Amino acid sequence: MIKVILIGALGKMGRVLGEAISREKDMKIIYGIEREDHPDLNKPFYDGYLLNNLEEVVKECDICVEFTNPQATLKHLEVIKKAQKPFLIGTTGFTKEEMEILKSAGKKIPLLYSANYSFGVNFVFKILKEIIKILPDNYDITLIEIHHKEKKDAPSGTAKRIIEIIKENKNKDINTVSLRFGDIVGKHTLIFATYGEVIEITHNALSRYAFANGVIYGIRFIVDKKPDFYLFEKIIS
Amino acid sequence: MIKVILIGALGKMGRVLGEAISREKDMKIIYGIEREDHPDLNKPFYDGYLLNNLEEVVKECDICVEFTNPQATLKHLEVIKKAQKPFLIGTTGFTKEEMEILKSAGKKIPLLYSANYSFGVNFVFKILKEIIKILPDNYDITLIEIHHKEKKDAPSGTAKRIIEIIKENKNKDINTVSLRFGDIVGKHTLIFATYGEVIEITHNALSRYAFANGVIYGIRFIVDKKPDFYLFEKIIS
Amino acid sequence: MIKVILIGALGKMGRVLGEAISREKDMKIIYGIEREDHPDLNKPFYDGYLLNNLEEVVKECDICVEFTNPQATLKHLEVIKKAQKPFLIGTTGFTKEEMEILKSAGKKIPLLYSANYSFGVNFVFKILKEIIKILPDNYDITLIEIHHKEKKDAPSGTAKRIIEIIKENKNKDINTVSLRFGDIVGKHTLIFATYGEVIEITHNALSRYAFANGVIYGIRFIVDKKPDFYLFEKIIS
Amino acid sequence: MIKVILIGALGKMGRVLGEAISREKDMKIIYGIEREDHPDLNKPFYDGYLLNNLEEVVKECDICVEFTNPQATLKHLEVIKKAQKPFLIGTTGFTKEEMEILKSAGKKIPLLYSANYSFGVNFVFKILKEIIKILPDNYDITLIEIHHKEKKDAPSGTAKRIIEIIKENKNKDINTVSLRFGDIVGKHTLIFATYGEVIEITHNALSRYAFANGVIYGIRFIVDKKPDFYLFEKIIS
Repeated sequence: MIKVILIGALGKMGRVLGEAISREKDMKIIYGIEREDHPDLNKPFYDGYLLNNLEEVVKECDICVEFTNPQATLKHLEVIKKAQKPFLIGTTGFTKEEMEILKSAGKKIPLLYSANYSFGVNFVFKILKEIIKILPDNYDITLIEIHHKEKKDAPSGTAKRIIEIIKENKNKDINTVSLRFGDIVGKHTLIFATYGEVIEITHNALSRYAFANGVIYGIRFIVDKKPDFYLFEKIIS
Repeated sequence: MIKVILIGALGKMGRVLGEAISREKDMKIIYGIEREDHPDLNKPFYDGYLLNNLEEVVKECDICVEFTNPQATLKHLEVIKKAQKPFLIGTTGFTKEEMEILKSAGKKIPLLYSANYSFGVNFVFKILKEIIKILPDNYDITLIEIHHKEKKDAPSGTAKRIIEIIKENKNKDINTVSLRFGDIVGKHTLIFATYGEVIEITHNALSRYAFANGVIYGIRFIVDKKPDFYLFEKIIS
Repeated sequence: MIKVILIGALGKMGRVLGEAISREKDMKIIYGIEREDHPDLNKPFYDGYLLNNLEEVVKECDICVEFTNPQATLKHLEVIKKAQKPFLIGTTGFTKEEMEILKSAGKKIPLLYSANYSFGVNFVFKILKEIIKILPDNYDITLIEIHHKEKKDAPSGTAKRIIEIIKENKNKDINTVSLRFGDIVGKHTLIFATYGEVIEITHNALSRYAFANGVIYGIRFIVDKKPDFYLFEKIIS
Repeated sequence: MIKVILIGALGKMGRVLGEAISREKDMKIIYGIEREDHPDLNKPFYDGYLLNNLEEVVKECDICVEFTNPQATLKHLEVIKKAQKPFLIGTTGFTKEEMEILKSAGKKIPLLYSANYSFGVNFVFKILKEIIKILPDNYDITLIEIHHKEKKDAPSGTAKRIIEIIKENKNKDINTVSLRFGDIVGKHTLIFATYGEVIEITHNALSRYAFANGVIYGIRFIVDKKPDFYLFEKIIS
């Protein structure tokens, strides 16, 4: 049984992670950590309590998981390094200098980082790298990406990464279409078409649970690794 | 420029292959071969003529391609072995003993064989082998295969091979649904679903050209290989 | 501007309705109503406050909207009848006798009822009734319904209604497939296929907002109608 | 049993129609008509023979069906008017003046005309007219049309008619995307999306048989009608 301390326990991602981790049979949440003025401090939280002070309890865990802000994450990093525990980080917005601090922490503890823990999206990246190596030249490649209409940037970050992977591996045009309608969380469809046949690969993110899957995969991966700085995309592709 | 002799030139697959090969810029058809009582013998055929006697012209080609019946194929095999030319075979219905004859011909000439040259289907097999290695256990796997309503067997041969690949690589259930309606040539959809996300991989065969793509890929592969018996599924996956 | 009182304001559907109604430009929530022991009573709620006593404020509204339980709904019905306000009800679980009380309230006030306010689903029912009238006999009909794997009943209620509409209008077989995987809220795909063409109609519910759309449509419909008992499926199909 | 004379019997559409009509149980082909220098004249053709002279046999039929060119069609029209037989025309390319000749022929015989007999496409037009009447304003409308890459014009004629129907019935924007890849015969997907739900209507033409379905429907419709000029889109929508 993997004992998890969940930092940022009642944030948007924290709530989703709490539910998702507690559903798995080989892991449990022994403490949640929240800011010192949180109204629910000291109340029960999954298999333990919601606390503010990580230092008091860090030794009891097998791994810490954090989705908060850079400042809080860097403060907790010092505590976790001292306790020599694995650390999975999903916080975004680090500066280049702060990223260097994370990377060098890899010398002391196993540290896993990603700005996008969607397992499926990283999965599609992996499939794509395999496909593009052997795809004959007479296949047309089309990418349709659909998001809710509040999303202003187009193509999406994921679409950009897909285009990049194709360009890196093959000097091949790809026709990209960005659609914005309704409240679609994120749907990416890659179409490979030629005379007589069409192959489609679609990733459809339905909710924030898409990210929880990758975090659970990451917890199992990092919990017994030796100290290093690991990137999520690399470990699954 | 790869010079092709097409055997079974005016059969159902032969006609499709004729059109498809002639569309490619790096290959041309120098002769078609048909049975001795064919009404179109000696008429022009692409960049040459339609003939009955392979032996007369086999030396002029870089590769022979045949989709006929086992008896005719084995007769032509002797001619092609003698001329030491590469041979791509799509004929089906060989007995075990006849398959052994094909295999041992691989000692003298490069021989490529498949009962299904659909490039895309073999492609999906390859992708699937990669996916299944890293797929977490909490993903449900569903396979929907759709064919025209004249097709009596279910699941399809392709569906059976997909199920087999999953079982070989992971002790995992897969829910398979076979639908028969309209005149769908063949559509296979693999769905990997978990909390918050769905990944779909679809292969849609629109016509016999689906098989032509694989043959063209196979021609380029086999034309300059050293003697051996090659299986199409292996060379692309 | 339509002034709405939302009863069951902080229940699962109430929260979704609160968000959805407040997004519309021609309506606003002037009060939320909750049970007498709710911790948030008297706090601000959209353009007014959260209260327990409907009777005090009912005269200020143009319409009441309720998603609670039969007992509470019937109690509120008396208050609303007395104030002669339109009433939209989404509460489920009424007995036959209780349904009769709702129906006879239609003599005094405009009352709109449905057990499923998904606009899109009722929309598909309407389209289907039009299609089935003119569909030639040589079309095969297939229905694929997909839901999360916690859903035990199959086919779904919506699928049953679709089958019923087809049977009522045409003595025609329909092949129905129920799939359960991941956490799909509800996806229904109707396929009409014949030689050379396929028509597909898909309804995909992404979240509880699917029901909010129908409620908003219903509010606009009922707000200025004369007293009667209205069914949602009928008003849009 | 409806007795059909098929004019343009061995043209591209004629061949497809021959196969399709002969599959139906309530109709049969009693003669095919071809140009006077056709090599197969006087050979058996379905339940009769291939001939050149329509006049000799027109009295034996219940209906004439023609897909040829304007000149031939107008010549045959005189013969069919004289024999007072129903006439289904799928020939395209008539001038305005020639169209007037067809229209006035409706005074003497029942004449059915369309430039696109795809039943499914006209079906989608009908559904769309029903939908658009009741569609709430907060739905985004998107149209994706996919054709083979040899197709130069975009959007397709069908897409233009869809946009026209939406504009006629509702002052509503529609986002149209045209994709050209592989050898897709023609696929049109209409998407209606709002908060929480998506409705999709897809028409997928797989082959020329898509047009045969409409012709068969048209034969049954026109065979016992009184003289008039009928448009296919109108009779099914």
